[in-house]
Amino acid sequence: MKTIYNFSAGPAVLPKPVLEKVQEELLNYRNSGMSVLELSHRSPWFEDIISQAEKRLRELMDIPENYQVLFLQGGASLQFSMLPLNLAKNQKAYYVNTGSWSKKAISEAKKIADVQVETLASSEDEHFTYIPKIDPATIDQDAAYVHITTNNTIEGTVYTDLPETGKVPLVADMSSNILSAPYDVRKFGVIYAGAQKNIGPAGLTVVIIRDDLINRSDTISAMLDYKIQADNHSLYNTPPTFSIYLAKLVLEWLQELGGVPAIEQLNRKKARLLYEAIDQSDLFQSPIRIADRSIMNIPFITGNKEVDAQFNKEAQAAGFENLKGHRSVGGMRASLYNAFPIEGVYDLIDFMHKFEKNVGGKKTNDIHYQNI
Amino acid sequence: MKTIYNFSAGPAVLPKPVLEKVQEELLNYRNSGMSVLELSHRSPWFEDIISQAEKRLRELMDIPENYQVLFLQGGASLQFSMLPLNLAKNQKAYYVNTGSWSKKAISEAKKIADVQVETLASSEDEHFTYIPKIDPATIDQDAAYVHITTNNTIEGTVYTDLPETGKVPLVADMSSNILSAPYDVRKFGVIYAGAQKNIGPAGLTVVIIRDDLINRSDTISAMLDYKIQADNHSLYNTPPTFSIYLAKLVLEWLQELGGVPAIEQLNRKKARLLYEAIDQSDLFQSPIRIADRSIMNIPFITGNKEVDAQFNKEAQAAGFENLKGHRSVGGMRASLYNAFPIEGVYDLIDFMHKFEKNVGGKKTNDIHYQNI
Repeated sequence: MKTIYNFSAGPAVLPKPVLEKVQEELLNYRNSGMSVLELSHRSPWFEDIISQAEKRLRELMDIPENYQVLFLQGGASLQFSMLPLNLAKNQKAYYVNTGSWSKKAISEAKKIADVQVETLASSEDEHFTYIPKIDPATIDQDAAYVHITTNNTIEGTVYTDLPETGKVPLVADMSSNILSAPYDVRKFGVIYAGAQKNIGPAGLTVVIIRDDLINRSDTISAMLDYKIQADNHSLYNTPPTFSIYLAKLVLEWLQELGGVPAIEQLNRKKARLLYEAIDQSDLFQSPIRIADRSIMNIPFITGNKEVDAQFNKEAQAAGFENLKGHRSVGGMRASLYNAFPIEGVYDLIDFMHKFEKNVGGKKTNDIHYQNI
Repeated sequence: MKTIYNFSAGPAVLPKPVLEKVQEELLNYRNSGMSVLELSHRSPWFEDIISQAEKRLRELMDIPENYQVLFLQGGASLQFSMLPLNLAKNQKAYYVNTGSWSKKAISEAKKIADVQVETLASSEDEHFTYIPKIDPATIDQDAAYVHITTNNTIEGTVYTDLPETGKVPLVADMSSNILSAPYDVRKFGVIYAGAQKNIGPAGLTVVIIRDDLINRSDTISAMLDYKIQADNHSLYNTPPTFSIYLAKLVLEWLQELGGVPAIEQLNRKKARLLYEAIDQSDLFQSPIRIADRSIMNIPFITGNKEVDAQFNKEAQAAGFENLKGHRSVGGMRASLYNAFPIEGVYDLIDFMHKFEKNVGGKKTNDIHYQNI
């Protein structure tokens, strides 16, 4: 069977040793006589799993004691509502608009009564191909938070330098680059991430929240209430037990690799190889400003929709899965998450070279990216 | 290794052939070269999985065309909020209080502004050991719904006859007895269930909702909005893909067994055997009114806390896992979900006989059930 490389933006490729471990112990978890899927969430086995998952995440990200780690459901999308519900009632909430997911965060926040949503900066003027700068002087210091999307999965941009927000907490949707390179957790009030990119499976959301930001009064639903979830150590109701188990295994795998600094080095190498191939090509190009290029999600285009479509078709036939760009922007996108093997990058570059030679085309200026 | 029987109330025992299938294809789903855990939720493979899961559930429960089937996250607990948010704004919502989960549904509904929550009937007067009758004449026919908990997981009661509610839609939390015995879906406006008992893994919630009850206007969050979830066929954001895959396998397994009528017969046999053993014992007793006894969750007690504790300890040592009653009621509880093997019931009864012989005790009237 031919090798398959999975460039999916999420759910995404998982580390092979993790999948093998899951397979190996699926019918009998640690001699319990039960599958991990069958364990009660109140059992000592599962208590160990969830506390190990938290411990490993704390170690990997150097999460200080005064931050809670929550394992929730509903994806980043549910956080778009939970954040303003819990943190911004009768206050101002700032958002930086850097793409599709920022826009959703903004439109969800606007649905919450008594929250004054303001867009602090936006890169929509140039199809989200860069990260806009923020003037700290424009930030009302009584605001509830400034929300950013550290990595824009669809557009392929990333925050390298975090904005200065004074005493206003910085809140980040880190779904697509958590654990890919170091961020100082102390610089954030809240970090949240859907797990299905660098943490593990779909159906799990990690929230890291500073103690003083946790709501003091009840919100409209226990499930949407950071305080209730924190007081119950993510066991207010039945959590997604298998997803947390898998996350624990992925975190262990990452620690064994050498943690975030080690994976960052590998991620930068994978991304550099691909960007170099794109930049040196006469056919492919990156629409993204160089300083703001993501190392996780790398969109590229030929400038010609038919050639893009031909490339995607031939690439898939050759075993490169999910290279097609998001339906909202078109072109191609290679998601190179932590578990994506470097061999897949080498093989993709080879394939791009061959395709370019066959097609004989060259870059055009007819850029349709995010403009279709 | 000794045989383990898992009486967990959820996450619970899963069918062995399903677990074996998961294990077998975990590294390479249908020759895709990817694990099912790695599949994009927009891939044809996953589209097939989710549509098959829906199709099988529709067949098993005979769900009419004018009902939507949604695969959501957050458990029944999140439905406690979504229901009144979407269905009962500026209206009256009736609840029947039959135990811990009904109480939570009521208290969550009360948090939603502009919903008039009314308890229509309650069995709290007798520690929830029966299902209260409802006088249809007392139901305001303009109310949004009447909410019941068809099976009370902690207390061990079940609705056999559904209440008459006139034209007011009946809404049911069916988490712990969905697919265990037939219910006529047409008699309900909404049915919802956490998956981790009879459907599959934790982290998945099934909602079956009649078209005309789906909200027309936006609610406060896309993730909490039945209309948005229905319009997007449960793919508004990344769904819990693996949990849906596992649910599909469980539903296939149930169909191969002969569907709900076949499993009902088996469930009734398992329950009858255990109830007979309890009723004929001089040591054990059921606190539940005979007509309202659940066939899924069977609580029993000796009437003496120390003897209960001794039984639980010895039972666990003998391989009977999770027999301890819920911490809120004490005693013992055997959850006999669809996937629980009848051999486990025979072995438990044997064990109970031996224990009774050794202890030599007899039933007392010092009933502490739900009174501790």
